[in-house]
Amino acid sequence: MRYLQGEPQQLPGNRKSLAAYAARHFRFEVREGVATLTLNRPERKNPLTFESYAELRDLFRELAHADDIKAVVIAGAGENFCSGGDVHDIIGPLTKLDMPGLLTFTRMTGDLVKAMRACPQPIVAAIDGICAGAGAILALASDMRFGTARSKTAFLFTRVGLAGCDMGACAILPRIIGQGRASELLYTGRAMGGEEAERWGFFNRLVAPEAVLAEAQQLAAQLAGGPTFAHGMTKKMLHQEWNMGVDEAIEAEAQAQAICMATNDFHRAYHAFVAKQKPEFEGD
Amino acid sequence: MRYLQGEPQQLPGNRKSLAAYAARHFRFEVREGVATLTLNRPERKNPLTFESYAELRDLFRELAHADDIKAVVIAGAGENFCSGGDVHDIIGPLTKLDMPGLLTFTRMTGDLVKAMRACPQPIVAAIDGICAGAGAILALASDMRFGTARSKTAFLFTRVGLAGCDMGACAILPRIIGQGRASELLYTGRAMGGEEAERWGFFNRLVAPEAVLAEAQQLAAQLAGGPTFAHGMTKKMLHQEWNMGVDEAIEAEAQAQAICMATNDFHRAYHAFVAKQKPEFEGD
Amino acid sequence: MRYLQGEPQQLPGNRKSLAAYAARHFRFEVREGVATLTLNRPERKNPLTFESYAELRDLFRELAHADDIKAVVIAGAGENFCSGGDVHDIIGPLTKLDMPGLLTFTRMTGDLVKAMRACPQPIVAAIDGICAGAGAILALASDMRFGTARSKTAFLFTRVGLAGCDMGACAILPRIIGQGRASELLYTGRAMGGEEAERWGFFNRLVAPEAVLAEAQQLAAQLAGGPTFAHGMTKKMLHQEWNMGVDEAIEAEAQAQAICMATNDFHRAYHAFVAKQKPEFEGD
Repeated sequence: MRYLQGEPQQLPGNRKSLAAYAARHFRFEVREGVATLTLNRPERKNPLTFESYAELRDLFRELAHADDIKAVVIAGAGENFCSGGDVHDIIGPLTKLDMPGLLTFTRMTGDLVKAMRACPQPIVAAIDGICAGAGAILALASDMRFGTARSKTAFLFTRVGLAGCDMGACAILPRIIGQGRASELLYTGRAMGGEEAERWGFFNRLVAPEAVLAEAQQLAAQLAGGPTFAHGMTKKMLHQEWNMGVDEAIEAEAQAQAICMATNDFHRAYHAFVAKQKPEFEGD
Repeated sequence: MRYLQGEPQQLPGNRKSLAAYAARHFRFEVREGVATLTLNRPERKNPLTFESYAELRDLFRELAHADDIKAVVIAGAGENFCSGGDVHDIIGPLTKLDMPGLLTFTRMTGDLVKAMRACPQPIVAAIDGICAGAGAILALASDMRFGTARSKTAFLFTRVGLAGCDMGACAILPRIIGQGRASELLYTGRAMGGEEAERWGFFNRLVAPEAVLAEAQQLAAQLAGGPTFAHGMTKKMLHQEWNMGVDEAIEAEAQAQAICMATNDFHRAYHAFVAKQKPEFEGD
Repeated sequence: MRYLQGEPQQLPGNRKSLAAYAARHFRFEVREGVATLTLNRPERKNPLTFESYAELRDLFRELAHADDIKAVVIAGAGENFCSGGDVHDIIGPLTKLDMPGLLTFTRMTGDLVKAMRACPQPIVAAIDGICAGAGAILALASDMRFGTARSKTAFLFTRVGLAGCDMGACAILPRIIGQGRASELLYTGRAMGGEEAERWGFFNRLVAPEAVLAEAQQLAAQLAGGPTFAHGMTKKMLHQEWNMGVDEAIEAEAQAQAICMATNDFHRAYHAFVAKQKPEFEGD
């Protein structure tokens, strides 16, 4: 039933386990292949700091090699998602940096988004309350977003004298909600309400506050139980084809899907169908 | 009144008639310049086979040279659009192919989408019932889509262990319904209902089941009676500008529209306007 | 409190004032940094002519160097926005031009859109009544759009035998309302109603006819009172990243935002925050 003969194996030295990863600047819990990452300074609405930015970047980079994590949920503790870069801990120090220092910072934050887009695990954000500044970017950089009606998502950068072009927002937000709506949010920094976010396609689903984390975890668990090698290819190709022509994208998909047809999960699905059973995917 | 002097003519040898084309794997009917292509195995919800894929690809390639077909409607027989690649006829054989064989298949299916995007005729899909897998791609690759409230459109690939990147879906679907909504459909394979499809911009119009084919044909007939050379240019430029910069797209359109201003249809429209008449377009 | 030492200054010779600009083919009024540009032939629903096209193009080019204009509003006089290129003044003469002449015209109109996208000032369109043909393009080329429920926006080109690819429409419209909805409007030329335009993301807000200009001016004034250097960077990056890959866009934003962090407005915002005051932005 296997596509390639021989025993299943993986490239030695390239794989690692992250299930027991002990996070320093946020909570990190893994259950049945789903990692839930919770920003956890609820008394401040979960702001980011230099240290949490760096740890998030490093963790998402490691996820590319972790074969015991199949999907990721990002959430915030205590009825807020994330208030973004802390004014005292981040904005203040930034006003004292020279240009190389500033670029080191903006590249670090951008590298976090790059890492989120590069890891093969689908990322589901569970958004309640405040989702602002870099917090809004964490939501944006996720693959899917569940949110509450009372949530407020704001690309606040203009309020501190900055541009809307932060961590990829001018590229990514227009593709999710359209160029006109994205322009308004980025120029004005105004909050997008929860119902608006659902109507515009920023949220995939509106959920009651007490259920939003659980529903995000449920979706993640569903994906973790599916053909995870193929999911990683879906994520990679959504990234690769971002600025390809249509014909080039079609050829790229012909190659990518041919690779997926050479996986065991594809064979498992077919044989399960023939046997009138539910397929058991293993991600290889 | 003609832009260029001399008799109307076309490049000898490059044109052919398809009005009498006898299709083998689907129904193909032409009326007043509108070809209606009906997938026709209703007892199986109109699945695709290796043979129907290849014939569809060849037909859409031929359409590029057919000057008696001005617009195309795609539909399915018997209250369903298309159930996609047949599990027994396609998935089973695919599990036995080597890599060159798999790539030959994925390129064939991709070539069908390329041909649909390359032919100058606008394509209107009339979607009722099941629209799944490669069927959903046929809908996606059309220019416009009319659908029913009860229709279910599902990018099912993940259910058989494959990735969402099939026949261009990761490139095209995000541009129609947005990156976030497309991601959910491609990762999960869940069905998009008819009202959702209209709300998200996948369907251009919700229509009652008994009327959806007729309304699609009516739109196609309207387009077939219009400036069809210009329609072909609209389609070509929507394709060309997919991944151009804004300034380059504007120059490309300056050239393309200048070409259209040198057609007789442009002159006909002006003179009809001056004469307070309805213009009679001829597609040259 | 300033990022760079020394007196504020600007490149000598590169700056000019436009507040007193005397427009010939439309009304042009400046108040507190907001220029309101009103197409003003209401008895004809404010059509464009060769002369007004050229003056608009030149004015938007000049705006790139005008440091006394911080935001722009475009509107039409007398309950209509703009009826597009006049049939008698433009279409008729075009039918008499040779190919170089046609291309000179389509490039002039395209250059107007390029200039609107290249000037650093955000542009807000206030749309009531008829918004058709090149008028619809003026709306499209703006950064944000407020419109009335009774407004009708139509990409009419097909009605005069032309293609939908005019002045960038095939590139820009799909990014605002999605590829499927854009295709229908461009192929058919049908009018998009006001509520539809809001639902699809073409309008940022539906406003009562008597208030639409004032609300557009209010948004423009709010932006003019903000960090205008950063707004110009937001606009530039929305343009630059149009067809970049995600990773390249993120690096581009890291550089652009680092530049903004070296502005005085960023420092002003931080110090105002610490002092619990509202920041006073100066655009440097």
